[in-house]
Amino acid sequence: MRQMNVAVVGATGAVGTMIIEKLIERKFPVNKLKLLASKRSAGSTITIGNETYTVEETTDQAFENIDIAFFSAGGSITERFSQAAIDAGALVIDNTSAFRMTEGVPLVVPEVNPEKIREHKGLIANPNCSTIQMVAALKGVKDQFGLNRLIVSTYQAVSGAGADAIHELEQQSKNFANRAENEANILPSGGDKKHYPIAYNVLPQIDVFGDDGYTLEELKMMNETQKIFDDYEMEVAATCVRLPVVTGHSESVYIELDRDDVTVAELQEAIQSVPGVVLEDDPATQTYPMPLFAEGKDEVFVGRVRKDRDKKNGFHLWIVSDNLVKGAALNSVQIAETYLSQIEE
Amino acid sequence: MRQMNVAVVGATGAVGTMIIEKLIERKFPVNKLKLLASKRSAGSTITIGNETYTVEETTDQAFENIDIAFFSAGGSITERFSQAAIDAGALVIDNTSAFRMTEGVPLVVPEVNPEKIREHKGLIANPNCSTIQMVAALKGVKDQFGLNRLIVSTYQAVSGAGADAIHELEQQSKNFANRAENEANILPSGGDKKHYPIAYNVLPQIDVFGDDGYTLEELKMMNETQKIFDDYEMEVAATCVRLPVVTGHSESVYIELDRDDVTVAELQEAIQSVPGVVLEDDPATQTYPMPLFAEGKDEVFVGRVRKDRDKKNGFHLWIVSDNLVKGAALNSVQIAETYLSQIEE
Repeated sequence: MRQMNVAVVGATGAVGTMIIEKLIERKFPVNKLKLLASKRSAGSTITIGNETYTVEETTDQAFENIDIAFFSAGGSITERFSQAAIDAGALVIDNTSAFRMTEGVPLVVPEVNPEKIREHKGLIANPNCSTIQMVAALKGVKDQFGLNRLIVSTYQAVSGAGADAIHELEQQSKNFANRAENEANILPSGGDKKHYPIAYNVLPQIDVFGDDGYTLEELKMMNETQKIFDDYEMEVAATCVRLPVVTGHSESVYIELDRDDVTVAELQEAIQSVPGVVLEDDPATQTYPMPLFAEGKDEVFVGRVRKDRDKKNGFHLWIVSDNLVKGAALNSVQIAETYLSQIEE
Repeated sequence: MRQMNVAVVGATGAVGTMIIEKLIERKFPVNKLKLLASKRSAGSTITIGNETYTVEETTDQAFENIDIAFFSAGGSITERFSQAAIDAGALVIDNTSAFRMTEGVPLVVPEVNPEKIREHKGLIANPNCSTIQMVAALKGVKDQFGLNRLIVSTYQAVSGAGADAIHELEQQSKNFANRAENEANILPSGGDKKHYPIAYNVLPQIDVFGDDGYTLEELKMMNETQKIFDDYEMEVAATCVRLPVVTGHSESVYIELDRDDVTVAELQEAIQSVPGVVLEDDPATQTYPMPLFAEGKDEVFVGRVRKDRDKKNGFHLWIVSDNLVKGAALNSVQIAETYLSQIEE
């Protein structure tokens, strides 16, 4: 198999680190691995197995001879450096929201729309974490029964907001008695004006507010789901909520199918027909997905599948996955793997 | 105003204690206050202001001369003793689920259906905490625009499962690093077989499982909402989820109105037209309800009101209230107040 020169931009971040781990764990054919970060982190070393890598500064020249460049250092870094990487001949796999909705940029979950990879013009976008697990869980359902409506309420972990948010949850959690007085500096959104405690609390805001009262996180889920499924008639509505959970996003999802004669057993079968999607659904044994037990796992877990009492084509379900794994690093590496298998066909 | 002899059954519990506090705070015309609990708690004393009360055992004879008996000690205690209280001439206001769905038993949220109080045959049921805040928030909407569909995903606090669940969350919260190994003995449901950690986790089960994959908590919300609104055509679907939050239930609610020409401003106006319902809704200043700041408050808070992108009659909103206050103790006392004002008319 062809060996690839790989760069990871944002190598010192949580997702960047996990991208490196997944490349090794999955035996991605890496020839040279180049770790890039900000000037501040340049010079620091990362040891993986027996090998120690020195982190270099991200510059326009850093992408020479690179075949695949993973970007996971924020939208502004992608905007600044991705064209240099493309010009140097690299395929950019971008984990930020910078180009996800840009016309002509493939937005890919390999289990759902691998064929879009072939349409790339140098950059493939990795979708938002909440979107990835939802479309993976619903891919089989949409293919087999048609999916025309989706209403999701999310239960999202703080790790999606970075290491500082995890640290803040840990610190605030110690102050159980006076929890309303906890100091907050990060959540709901580092870029917004006000901050609220997350420990023992629920924040109905992720990212800043956009149009019509929706947050950007909600708009991402709505727009990206339509783009990935390539179905702009599909009705998608999202409410995105942050919880005092370290890692693992959960989603309460209501769907309406094109067909109204589908049974719960048939829906469950369709859900788990997709690779990487695992059904955990047995009320008799209290079996259902929970984020604490999805931490560090590759799979998307689905449970609580039940029929709506009123709509014959309506179902409710519960989807959980590790937002840093399938929601970010793993999906990026899977895009690279699928790309590789396509160019070697 | 007529003075009432009042009994509180389950006086040592979280809701029982708060019923006593609310009776005093709201200057309910109490002549004699009798605190009842299990044999185990009998003899213990509760001091309120300058007055010390001795807790007595709940017996069939304990209700002599009682005008109003609040029951908040579990469904089995209501089933065992409520008839004795009724036979002794008391009006029973029951905070358990024992008789909520019984034909002929009024299920009352005073802002929504106070007229049902007049139909009582000795017992008035207080609805489930999650239901109360939702119907209060939607009462004005239903009256003004008609409400034919409702899909809710809840974010519920552990205090709804009692003091032991609060203690368990506090203990587990200390173990941040090895959170998946936390011992669990209470949640998701004391009466069920398996228990899972709640700290840094999300449990998509409240109460035990009933029919068709729904939990009893979900069926309560669905059935009680129809009964309180006296509208059995209304489509209601619920997914009930427990979170590591001490007190305060949150709800992500999608609704469809009978009319499709309603604006967000008109909906907001209708929501806050109901006494006790407060609109906290301004994205520009990141104003929305959160459970940490609803603790101990009487009101039902509503925010994140926005129009669905696809359905002209569809809206999304976010409802938060203290599950022990409006969700339990306060609503029970308000039922008693409304009853009193009705018999004095």
